[in-house]
Amino acid sequence: MTTQDYERIKKQSLNMLQSMNIVLTDKEKEDFEVADFGLNNLDKTGLQLITYINTDNVCAKDLVLLPNQTCPEHKHPRRAFDDGKEETFRCRYGKVFLYVEGLESTNRAAQPPHGDEEYYTVFNEVILNPGEQYTIFPNTLHWFQASSSGAVVSEFSTRSTDEEDIFTDPRINRIPKAN
Amino acid sequence: MTTQDYERIKKQSLNMLQSMNIVLTDKEKEDFEVADFGLNNLDKTGLQLITYINTDNVCAKDLVLLPNQTCPEHKHPRRAFDDGKEETFRCRYGKVFLYVEGLESTNRAAQPPHGDEEYYTVFNEVILNPGEQYTIFPNTLHWFQASSSGAVVSEFSTRSTDEEDIFTDPRINRIPKAN
Repeated sequence: MTTQDYERIKKQSLNMLQSMNIVLTDKEKEDFEVADFGLNNLDKTGLQLITYINTDNVCAKDLVLLPNQTCPEHKHPRRAFDDGKEETFRCRYGKVFLYVEGLESTNRAAQPPHGDEEYYTVFNEVILNPGEQYTIFPNTLHWFQASSSGAVVSEFSTRSTDEEDIFTDPRINRIPKAN
Repeated sequence: MTTQDYERIKKQSLNMLQSMNIVLTDKEKEDFEVADFGLNNLDKTGLQLITYINTDNVCAKDLVLLPNQTCPEHKHPRRAFDDGKEETFRCRYGKVFLYVEGLESTNRAAQPPHGDEEYYTVFNEVILNPGEQYTIFPNTLHWFQASSSGAVVSEFSTRSTDEEDIFTDPRINRIPKAN
């Protein structure tokens, strides 16, 4: 992504958090993450997040999704120290369309990003409004997309090791190397 | 506590959460917990909380403290399945005076509830303003008190088993039996 994209989307995300009375320290604002997954199309596929804590046992993040932005399909595989990351998504603001393994839902509210359909394979729909939440157990494929309002989602999980995530789209690189 | 106390303090706590745009489901509002620790003096010693999730691995809660209210000194001992609960407190609103094991701080901002001083033994002060957080590792004595503004605190932790907590005050019963 360009520096301009990064700064624009970071600012937009921090404004969403601020409007919800979610206070970040200056250090957290500095460390705020804008992930384009190496696809260089942030407004369509991406995720913005702040990691509050990530110990050996527990991780907590707040995720920000821009209007209609998609976090691409992935899973959290078995690791050296456990069966894989377990995570609960709790919607705080907006609306999230979450798709997990299981029976394909008909008349789905969201579609994969146009042109990337082949990299989306699970379609069991869970809709999360503010106050609603869903737990993803290890090694389960999932992806999610914000409604046109965007979304803020709290994630409560076991230890986070983003670099171990397995994405369905082989073009994706969760932790892009600095150029 | 009386039903009137319970209803009054529950309402006050839910209002604080609502004023912060923290949305709870109707079920969560129903399940909202008002803990008087069996001391029957809620305005002085107590804690209000909603548990969002508590799996085998991860627990997330939001805690509400009334102005100057104290959560009494306790620790989370070794359990059958781990070394004890690990928890991170993140202040969201107000101000929290947290006391943990270690060098006693001079000129402390808060004092134990009047008359209960003998049940407070750790005085290493950590002050948490909104956006600030602190991690309590297992088996570590701690207690905390809100400033005159009250406080809302997010707690991210390993599995919660409140019934196993060990309180310094032998009169305390974390999970009072229904009368």
